[in-house]
Amino acid sequence: MDTPRILIAPGPYKECLDSFEVAQAIKAGVESILPLAKITVRPLSDGGSGIARILTDVTQGSLEHVEVKGPTGVPIKSFFGLLGDGVTAVVESAAAAGLSLVPQDKRNPLYTSTFGVGELISKAVERGAKNIIVGCGDSATNDCGIGCAAALGVRFYCNDSISPLNVPRGIDLQKITRIEAEEATKRLQGINIIVACNLTSILSGPEGTSIIYGPQKGATPQDVPILHQGVESFVELVYQSKGIDLSYIPGAGGAGGLAAALYAFFKARLTYSIDVIDKYVELDKYLAETDIVFTGEGRIDDRTATGKLPCGLALKAKKYNLPVVAIVGGISSDCEDIFYNGIDAVESISEGPSSLEDSINDAYNLIKRAAERVTRFMFKIPKRV
Amino acid sequence: MDTPRILIAPGPYKECLDSFEVAQAIKAGVESILPLAKITVRPLSDGGSGIARILTDVTQGSLEHVEVKGPTGVPIKSFFGLLGDGVTAVVESAAAAGLSLVPQDKRNPLYTSTFGVGELISKAVERGAKNIIVGCGDSATNDCGIGCAAALGVRFYCNDSISPLNVPRGIDLQKITRIEAEEATKRLQGINIIVACNLTSILSGPEGTSIIYGPQKGATPQDVPILHQGVESFVELVYQSKGIDLSYIPGAGGAGGLAAALYAFFKARLTYSIDVIDKYVELDKYLAETDIVFTGEGRIDDRTATGKLPCGLALKAKKYNLPVVAIVGGISSDCEDIFYNGIDAVESISEGPSSLEDSINDAYNLIKRAAERVTRFMFKIPKRV
Repeated sequence: MDTPRILIAPGPYKECLDSFEVAQAIKAGVESILPLAKITVRPLSDGGSGIARILTDVTQGSLEHVEVKGPTGVPIKSFFGLLGDGVTAVVESAAAAGLSLVPQDKRNPLYTSTFGVGELISKAVERGAKNIIVGCGDSATNDCGIGCAAALGVRFYCNDSISPLNVPRGIDLQKITRIEAEEATKRLQGINIIVACNLTSILSGPEGTSIIYGPQKGATPQDVPILHQGVESFVELVYQSKGIDLSYIPGAGGAGGLAAALYAFFKARLTYSIDVIDKYVELDKYLAETDIVFTGEGRIDDRTATGKLPCGLALKAKKYNLPVVAIVGGISSDCEDIFYNGIDAVESISEGPSSLEDSINDAYNLIKRAAERVTRFMFKIPKRV
Repeated sequence: MDTPRILIAPGPYKECLDSFEVAQAIKAGVESILPLAKITVRPLSDGGSGIARILTDVTQGSLEHVEVKGPTGVPIKSFFGLLGDGVTAVVESAAAAGLSLVPQDKRNPLYTSTFGVGELISKAVERGAKNIIVGCGDSATNDCGIGCAAALGVRFYCNDSISPLNVPRGIDLQKITRIEAEEATKRLQGINIIVACNLTSILSGPEGTSIIYGPQKGATPQDVPILHQGVESFVELVYQSKGIDLSYIPGAGGAGGLAAALYAFFKARLTYSIDVIDKYVELDKYLAETDIVFTGEGRIDDRTATGKLPCGLALKAKKYNLPVVAIVGGISSDCEDIFYNGIDAVESISEGPSSLEDSINDAYNLIKRAAERVTRFMFKIPKRV
């Protein structure tokens, strides 16, 4: 087949290129080898940064720019998406509590809050949204969403304190002894909150969100048990006061437990990000008309196989028996499981020994050339082999 | 085709793995994806280290261990190969004047000599060899072979000095004013010297060996012009005294001009390494029975297309219309020409940002996994694409 139909649907390379840029780079590489290929570009997201643009893009919606508290409490310029239907908003946890909003040397999830996410939800509701999609991912937080919940009116009290916490953070989880949520819950009645997350992310036990994701948010080995005990203490308090056991709710660990608070206080539905996106992007429409799928993410590892974007997409592609190739910034040697989850082959953009910084700075060209390489392997090796 | 016939014929990854190890790593990777593939392994060499083992291996010859002067004049354990025919020897410039014999911080081609290469040739002749193959490559020297020639009896005099230089080095080239070669030439009459080199390597002009290869042998920007002027002065002296213009003889720049001295004083024939090796390995035999060729080298760049191993092999493979893929330690972004010289696709072993040191230390596994990746791209993407 000389003019294959190619769907390019990558996620972002986090803290490097967004999924629109990644897709363009892959497209440029494929086209330089196969100028006649019929290429469709459909950038995706894991629920982290990008989901608002993707969903507003596909529904002809808009991005609304607002100011909220950032993860460290300092006001920042942020945004939410308003979809074309006028009643659905998309809030990115990354846009108000994102890791990239905190300088590398200041990252510590003990001292960050999802308060701004709650403000975004609030503003979306004021703007008339009845459905709020909350994208979890790329967060700098591990506060079980108490910051977000506080911004929405839930009151968290420590010991005998008569005033609730203002902007609760990860470190406050272990101190909370009482929660008043009824009023806030009532105020948001009739608002459907859909959390776009990874359902393999949970709060408790050895695979709890603090343990798995804490370190990449800047938690030291000493901080992780403090965060984890804070989470367990919050889980226990919610169970005692509301009868809801958050411990192993699939997805509740999303964005450092943000999903848990939205679930416990506002009856949020927790859903795989790819499924939320798929509802609007309608991937089936594209997959049915494609010969091969290109996807990708910043780093592919053993977690990729557990519900993350490339495999989520790949498994959908397998309904159409399509080959799926991933172009990634780095391949972890423990990523074998991806080959049992729809990915047929994977390529790193690295062309030799190089620093992370250089790879990030030259990512567009490296992705383009990686796409050239794999296109050669797949389409330029004579067919008699 | 479920059980393709695969020829694995890489060169070495210099200062990392020899071509036998590289070939085994590629084989392991291919087999992990295609357990039934019919694999033939035929390690190759560029004339640098490995050529003696390759040729003795294929002719059931032996390696003879001897002591000679190393590149800095210190005695080292070295070797030459004696082919199965009993009258042909293989001498590696790398085994007596090789870059890997000089510690990284001591490398400087002003102060190194090919003297030991001459000793190896001498010992091979004593051992009864009538044909001497001299592999050029991986040398630490830029002495135009005057060290080697001196060891074989050629006398180099400076100004009015009455005694010849003992162990001439790169820095001595510019001081030599008189050469006595007749006796040495006579002594080696009847001995055929075949130089295995890259015929694109020359002595003079802006692409002269000192300019192109000096820096990677440790010459500083200040050293390079000194070396280059020394070479030009030697070229002039040889022209004046023997009427031979070495300036642009194809291949004369091999091993820092070692090839030039062997050509000028001993009528050596300069030949592409791949052709010398091919005479014994008989690549046609394998290529005729193969569906695809895997090759590789440490770093693929714009020089690879000019007669170096992967392309030398690739062009032979193209007589049989075979696809050729290269697995390399690093891809230079200026390597586009390889695709016009027989290589169909190239893969780097890097899996993400990494140091040169880590890549070297884990090279075997990285090569194996790179072979797995490309085998997936070529053989595991469903054929309907």
